[in-house]
Amino acid sequence: MTLSPGTRPANIGALGKLKIRPYRGAMPRYAFRVEYFGAPFSGWQAQPNQPTIQKTIEAAVRELDPDCPGISAAGRTDSGVHATGQVAHCDLVREWDPVRLSDAINHHLRPHPVAITAAARVADSFHARFSAIERQYVYRIVQRRAPLALDRRRAWRIGHGLDVDAMRQACAFLVGRHDFTTFRSSLCQAQSPIRTLDALDIVAHPTAGGTGYRIHARARSFLHRQVRSIVGTLERVGAGAWPPEQVGEALDARERSACGPVAPANGLCLARVRYQPEIFDG
Amino acid sequence: MTLSPGTRPANIGALGKLKIRPYRGAMPRYAFRVEYFGAPFSGWQAQPNQPTIQKTIEAAVRELDPDCPGISAAGRTDSGVHATGQVAHCDLVREWDPVRLSDAINHHLRPHPVAITAAARVADSFHARFSAIERQYVYRIVQRRAPLALDRRRAWRIGHGLDVDAMRQACAFLVGRHDFTTFRSSLCQAQSPIRTLDALDIVAHPTAGGTGYRIHARARSFLHRQVRSIVGTLERVGAGAWPPEQVGEALDARERSACGPVAPANGLCLARVRYQPEIFDG
Repeated sequence: MTLSPGTRPANIGALGKLKIRPYRGAMPRYAFRVEYFGAPFSGWQAQPNQPTIQKTIEAAVRELDPDCPGISAAGRTDSGVHATGQVAHCDLVREWDPVRLSDAINHHLRPHPVAITAAARVADSFHARFSAIERQYVYRIVQRRAPLALDRRRAWRIGHGLDVDAMRQACAFLVGRHDFTTFRSSLCQAQSPIRTLDALDIVAHPTAGGTGYRIHARARSFLHRQVRSIVGTLERVGAGAWPPEQVGEALDARERSACGPVAPANGLCLARVRYQPEIFDG
Repeated sequence: MTLSPGTRPANIGALGKLKIRPYRGAMPRYAFRVEYFGAPFSGWQAQPNQPTIQKTIEAAVRELDPDCPGISAAGRTDSGVHATGQVAHCDLVREWDPVRLSDAINHHLRPHPVAITAAARVADSFHARFSAIERQYVYRIVQRRAPLALDRRRAWRIGHGLDVDAMRQACAFLVGRHDFTTFRSSLCQAQSPIRTLDALDIVAHPTAGGTGYRIHARARSFLHRQVRSIVGTLERVGAGAWPPEQVGEALDARERSACGPVAPANGLCLARVRYQPEIFDG
């Protein structure tokens, strides 16, 4: 039996059938910046019988390299959440020019609304999730009476007015290092509820028949559903149902039941993941 | 036979069957601002066996008022073209509160990606097309190597770089009052090819893996396919295939064959139509 370079015998089954598995230590690692429209997917993470972004990309990569062990992301976005700057990495059997690699994966990603917008060869120690030093999310709200047509499934439409000054006052309670137990899903698997929210800013702009808002959130890492829990709570403040101070009290309570409603997934977008040093050129 | 107010006998058929038709002179006129995602439609104008925006809105309005004679738009956008600020008008049998009217039409527009974002009662002399004093179009280009995922069918992706300074030089030849024969469709039905292009500006902004461009065009009125003909020609300049001066020569030639390729419909959006006085509040 002859082994090609970069593979080794790894699994001799009970019936003595020899399977050839790639030897991961010798495989070059690549990082990708990924854009996707999340509405048709059941989130990032592979699940049985559900279309997910991870499975979609893995299927495309395995058209090029059937031995790719799988792909890992910086943020396992929920069902319906979008990304312009998700980052993922995987190991491949052979060396690729990064531009040709992303072109080839994009070819196999059709017709899914998922695209590799940058690729880079990275060190074996690089991990899209654990090497990240910052995540940036943007949550889009459109405040207007009419349903969304062009931005359907791309923003949260809110029919009533929003007091953005009150919302900004509420943001001030959340920025900094805190126990965010109130603002994380009860399913969150993070060991610690302590996170440092570096920025939480609201930018308003006029739009046909109303006002658009972009809520920018920036932190080294976030808890599960943290941004949507924060945005849903800020909306209550904007609606006048909560005074801004109640957000500080909810944070101090450190219990999930003190949180406002969780904002819909379709308004959220993972905009950027940063590394030191940066891994992509453009 | 009793006639309800606002109707009159209008059409006694050959077999003597009496049809009640609305009396148009007595019907109140309403104007609407309309937003739509144009990709799934064969343009604005009603056509047999084709989904069009006009037919979609007329069907929704006739759920409220079966006698609505039809709806007219400021710009009969082509197949695939979007709008955030299209304006249309129609006559209805009875008086409506404009907010309730737009809510009711939006209810019946579901699940189509079309929404009424403002409504107003207007004078009988108002005509969405003939009363307009200005149209504003925005054409979106995304210059990057990767296919579009989030902006799919919402912009024209161009793989090569664009020399935006050269494109701006070319714009300068087109602004002002000119014979735009070169830049109109051979099917254009306008009596005169003379138009005054008040503004043609290009705004650039960074985007993941490339650069986004918005080309803003403003005029009292446009010829058929004028914006897409101009954008397709500007792209040739940006690509370095045409020197900027060639756009001035093409304009002077006053012949369709001197035009560059017509840019794809999905990049174009009718952003605003203006009237004097303005008809919508927000």
